[in-house]
Amino acid sequence: MEFLTSYQKQIATSLQTFNAGKQPEGLYAPIDYLLALGGKRLRPTLVLMSCEAFGNPAASALAAAQAIEVFHNFTLMHDDIMDKSLVRRGAQTVHEKWGVNTAILSGDAMLIQAYACLHEYDASLFKSLTTLLSKTALEVCEGQQFDVDFEARTDVDIALYLEMIRLKTAVLVGCAMQMGALVGGASEQAAKQLYTFGEKLGLAFQLQDDYLDTFGDAAQFGKRIGGDIIENKKTILVHALNKQGTAAQQKALQKWLADKPANEAEKIAAVTTLFKESKADKATLDYVRQYTAQAFDALDKVSLDDEYKQRFISFGNWLMKRTH
Amino acid sequence: MEFLTSYQKQIATSLQTFNAGKQPEGLYAPIDYLLALGGKRLRPTLVLMSCEAFGNPAASALAAAQAIEVFHNFTLMHDDIMDKSLVRRGAQTVHEKWGVNTAILSGDAMLIQAYACLHEYDASLFKSLTTLLSKTALEVCEGQQFDVDFEARTDVDIALYLEMIRLKTAVLVGCAMQMGALVGGASEQAAKQLYTFGEKLGLAFQLQDDYLDTFGDAAQFGKRIGGDIIENKKTILVHALNKQGTAAQQKALQKWLADKPANEAEKIAAVTTLFKESKADKATLDYVRQYTAQAFDALDKVSLDDEYKQRFISFGNWLMKRTH
Repeated sequence: MEFLTSYQKQIATSLQTFNAGKQPEGLYAPIDYLLALGGKRLRPTLVLMSCEAFGNPAASALAAAQAIEVFHNFTLMHDDIMDKSLVRRGAQTVHEKWGVNTAILSGDAMLIQAYACLHEYDASLFKSLTTLLSKTALEVCEGQQFDVDFEARTDVDIALYLEMIRLKTAVLVGCAMQMGALVGGASEQAAKQLYTFGEKLGLAFQLQDDYLDTFGDAAQFGKRIGGDIIENKKTILVHALNKQGTAAQQKALQKWLADKPANEAEKIAAVTTLFKESKADKATLDYVRQYTAQAFDALDKVSLDDEYKQRFISFGNWLMKRTH
Repeated sequence: MEFLTSYQKQIATSLQTFNAGKQPEGLYAPIDYLLALGGKRLRPTLVLMSCEAFGNPAASALAAAQAIEVFHNFTLMHDDIMDKSLVRRGAQTVHEKWGVNTAILSGDAMLIQAYACLHEYDASLFKSLTTLLSKTALEVCEGQQFDVDFEARTDVDIALYLEMIRLKTAVLVGCAMQMGALVGGASEQAAKQLYTFGEKLGLAFQLQDDYLDTFGDAAQFGKRIGGDIIENKKTILVHALNKQGTAAQQKALQKWLADKPANEAEKIAAVTTLFKESKADKATLDYVRQYTAQAFDALDKVSLDDEYKQRFISFGNWLMKRTH
């Protein structure tokens, strides 16, 4: 997918000088440090892709793409404090390198800069984009809080879990698509359909991520397998087992989740077996398929040139084809 | 000043239901807790006052006033984490009551909500207000970072110190005035002049606050006298002494600032004497007078009904008349 690489390059180049020369350095250097660490830059790529699909040059959506990428990195900077994470994209997290206070304040500045990126659009488009950003940003905060709350609750069912990950991760993918479409000149309706495509694809991707953390191939998945099990994370697999597993399976899972085992491999093997026996693995894959199908259904309804529709299909297939 | 009380009531009432019933409670309850603690609500009051002065009802600026008040309280929530403050307006700070992670996330949500308050304005006004908010908000972050940097530096002169407090506190007062004027239908030029009135008044107020912390009357000032001296804060008094004091006075001040004295009263008395002997107290009052005069000069240039101009003059005099 050459178009992806081209978009990624445009975004990376535009972010290289994002805060060049600005003072105080103590505020802006941590922002540029995090932005330079890279990542796949999928969200801003989607902004450019959507804009071009509706007939405006990708460059006209670069500011909106920056807004999305800067906002996303703001959430990473603050989430890393909350999670006490030491490493992000193979490098020290901002709060590890500069301290918590810097990570709070530079993160705040990033959130403001995400809004400021949108200033270059005319008043009517600016209002549509900014309103969408505020709605999405608040949903992301709500998702983060639900995630924290749910770790301490025992009454969370699958529907609540799905709503949490929709807010925490999927809405921003939808927002990226819709922003690009709006800058591209799409109708309100078409832009909303692209939002749905992004939102459902984001959900499918996140659920697949839960699945691959336990059932993926370490080399292809790029992370250690079983990490969620060791951290006792309440992923979709846990919720699916709690819904459809036998009482004995549920009890066994509870016991493992409460344990800090001497032998991690033993715990991973035991919990993985429970997920298989209860068919929580299959239930999870069903959700992934269901949301992927809903995403492509939404895309199908959008009136677009075949070339550009094909790009979205390629992107969706590429995103979801990670081997398991 | 009855008009002040009436504005304050409108704001307090409108904030009572700001997040009523919203979920998750863990995100929104800390926001409403901080907003309900009150404070003088001077900044949002200025928004309503400016709007009415230009001929639109105060109620039409209520959303902009909320944006300013919510933004200001966002800065308090995050500043209290950074300063490790235990008490705000006589009550527990949010991070003391709910933990640092909650104060980070609820603060983030407040910053987003400040922007969201502005959605009710039409696209053109929305863009003017939002652009002004972003510019101001970023300046406030810069001021906060300069403040942190300056505490560790020894080469900060008065000009840098004044620029820091302009960014950290004065620009938001200017922003409040300008927002109200814009909603009120003022010309760009008149709105900018009101910004200058607010900015200069904000500077004068902050410098007077530095002065009163050492030279005020405890009962009237409402805080313990000498707190800044005990905390070794580099206020305008310190910068003025470093500029115009003798080498011996500068050396004596340095010694006191490096000390954690057994006898606090002795330290306060000694440093106060140094401020007087070096005439740092008089220099500070000169700055206060100078910025107050600049504020009223800016106001004088605005074309306004006498009744409303008189209100601004009354407000300025009331703000600056705290006894010293």
